[in-house]
Amino acid sequence: MKKIAILGATGSIGKNGLKVIDQFKDKFEIIALSANKNYKLLIEQIKKYKPKYVSIGTEEGYKAIKKEFSNIEIFIGESGLKKIGQIDEMDILLTAVSGSIGIESTIEAIKNGKRIALANKETLVAAGDIITKMDREILPVDSEHSAIFQSLKSGKNKEVENIILTASGGPFRGYTLNELKNISVEQALKHPNWKMGSKITIDSATLVNKGLEVIEAHYLFNVDYDKIKVLVHPESIVHSMVEFKDSSVIAQMGMPDMKLPIQYAFTYPDRMSNVELPKLNLGKIGKLTFEEPNLELFKGLKLAYEAGKNGNGYPIVFNMANEELVKLFLDRKIKFLEIYDYIEEVLNQFNSEKIETVEQIKHIEKITKEKLRRMINEK
Amino acid sequence: MKKIAILGATGSIGKNGLKVIDQFKDKFEIIALSANKNYKLLIEQIKKYKPKYVSIGTEEGYKAIKKEFSNIEIFIGESGLKKIGQIDEMDILLTAVSGSIGIESTIEAIKNGKRIALANKETLVAAGDIITKMDREILPVDSEHSAIFQSLKSGKNKEVENIILTASGGPFRGYTLNELKNISVEQALKHPNWKMGSKITIDSATLVNKGLEVIEAHYLFNVDYDKIKVLVHPESIVHSMVEFKDSSVIAQMGMPDMKLPIQYAFTYPDRMSNVELPKLNLGKIGKLTFEEPNLELFKGLKLAYEAGKNGNGYPIVFNMANEELVKLFLDRKIKFLEIYDYIEEVLNQFNSEKIETVEQIKHIEKITKEKLRRMINEK
Repeated sequence: MKKIAILGATGSIGKNGLKVIDQFKDKFEIIALSANKNYKLLIEQIKKYKPKYVSIGTEEGYKAIKKEFSNIEIFIGESGLKKIGQIDEMDILLTAVSGSIGIESTIEAIKNGKRIALANKETLVAAGDIITKMDREILPVDSEHSAIFQSLKSGKNKEVENIILTASGGPFRGYTLNELKNISVEQALKHPNWKMGSKITIDSATLVNKGLEVIEAHYLFNVDYDKIKVLVHPESIVHSMVEFKDSSVIAQMGMPDMKLPIQYAFTYPDRMSNVELPKLNLGKIGKLTFEEPNLELFKGLKLAYEAGKNGNGYPIVFNMANEELVKLFLDRKIKFLEIYDYIEEVLNQFNSEKIETVEQIKHIEKITKEKLRRMINEK
Repeated sequence: MKKIAILGATGSIGKNGLKVIDQFKDKFEIIALSANKNYKLLIEQIKKYKPKYVSIGTEEGYKAIKKEFSNIEIFIGESGLKKIGQIDEMDILLTAVSGSIGIESTIEAIKNGKRIALANKETLVAAGDIITKMDREILPVDSEHSAIFQSLKSGKNKEVENIILTASGGPFRGYTLNELKNISVEQALKHPNWKMGSKITIDSATLVNKGLEVIEAHYLFNVDYDKIKVLVHPESIVHSMVEFKDSSVIAQMGMPDMKLPIQYAFTYPDRMSNVELPKLNLGKIGKLTFEEPNLELFKGLKLAYEAGKNGNGYPIVFNMANEELVKLFLDRKIKFLEIYDYIEEVLNQFNSEKIETVEQIKHIEKITKEKLRRMINEK
């Protein structure tokens, strides 16, 4: 029986993680759950999965849970997440929170030799330089990185010629610059293939998400940026590929469903049948298409490569600026293409420093937010 | 320095094998070469690769080689192939001859613990029951089986849900029954993607080749026939796929070039750069298509499944009957669809027996040929 802790249990990945566990009640059990604001759903989950530990983001939630459950340990806030990372009985930590609040908890679990089922991109994008110095077992939960992880099994790491991340291209694939200028929030929230949260849906539309995945892949697989390519594949069936030195390309395919990479991260090195995982029927799908991404138009990807290659604090700035700018776009305070403009401006104003502590990351995030606010107010 | 022997050096696979060796002169050397009739080309190859042993199919060839080279051992005929299989200094035997004459040599090399780079389909189709009882290292050279071999690395054998062999569908994909009735030899010899010998090109057009590959896959990977699927993929980029229990599908892709699977069979478990291997550029290719094969029309595949499932001597009859019928078709003595009719008839008249020796295989092949001749003469 493997004991799993989920950070971000009430989000999209967290809920899918629980669905996977529902199918393997004899193999996995929940030791801990966390949520930020949605304590009502968390209470339902506590009733069903009976964790020993819970962490909640708000005072209000803390009180509500405390009132209902007497026999579980309840933590609060960011320190609560850290405590969950330290649980000794845990076998696997699924980090499905977004933002840098997931980093410390993940680092704690890595220190204790726990497997990380990683869905928190900041762990690698912002803390990549810290994490890659540690002995670690990270199983990626992103469908792209899971695909690469699975494809890499067919050769040795030093035999990798290129990693090819596929991208749906988002809802605005093929748009002209003029068309992109007036994208509405509603248009940007319609993702063609994946049902996800609004932040990541916007990031898919800007290709910033793919850019963050490039940086993640760099740290996760220890591959140079010039060996990480992005290929637009609107059907999202080929989840990513690895090209080896001998020109052999290994791809992992499947229907777009987050449960597969989550399950793989739980069961690895085994694979297990799950009736809830949809079968791929290529004969029925009929056609898979591929095209090069337009880096000039969808500058999010280009900026990510630049930030990644600059290294140090640049990926942190890139990620944080984007996070803030997506909020501003969703609040209709900036236009779609201004996301790129401001990211570029903030990156240009940044001075690099070597990243060695989580405090540094948080500091860079803070000054990035402040800088952005000033920029936008001054406009 | 690995020592490689090539059975069938003057054929398409053999020549490609030598091209691979040309690129790795510091890693591989030729210890033995064989040819059937084309002793002139073999003589050129002997001059270039300086093998210690040579085998040739004809008296005429034997004399010509003997005259020119004094310091190499020259064998003749089927016993000559067997002797090459027994060479102790050899590391890898590339069996690129077609027909059951390749079986004994392969068995000898397996007995001696040599790696087999297998391109002789009879070794598995006819002698599968014999071979699978032996400890063996067989690296498939067929692009499809090599793709499966590579894809299987991503999971455990017991986790395989389906093996999916891709098929170009041949030049007559989408044809109606009436159109198939009057196929000319010239039409059948035009393969859309691969440049191959005329026998295998016709087998691609009838889908008999895919049927033989199904039987090979059964023996090579120890997978039940109901878990081996065929999917038509006209572009021949996805060379084959493995679907695992968790619905994850791993595919191997590449440009259609036999040098890749040959090289992989030589270098495995390593992968090596080779400037001669063309790179896959999916962005440029743009589109991959897939469709279910029409088993009612292209009955070659259906008959292969039946022969395979019946086991014992049936695959031998299927293969031998087809070989003879393709010759008759190329000689314009029977029509395209009669290949199916006669295969079916010969299979129906066959009585199963357990296959334990190569003599049995040869006997079944002999009576199959005789039966076919009678059938066709009586018509």
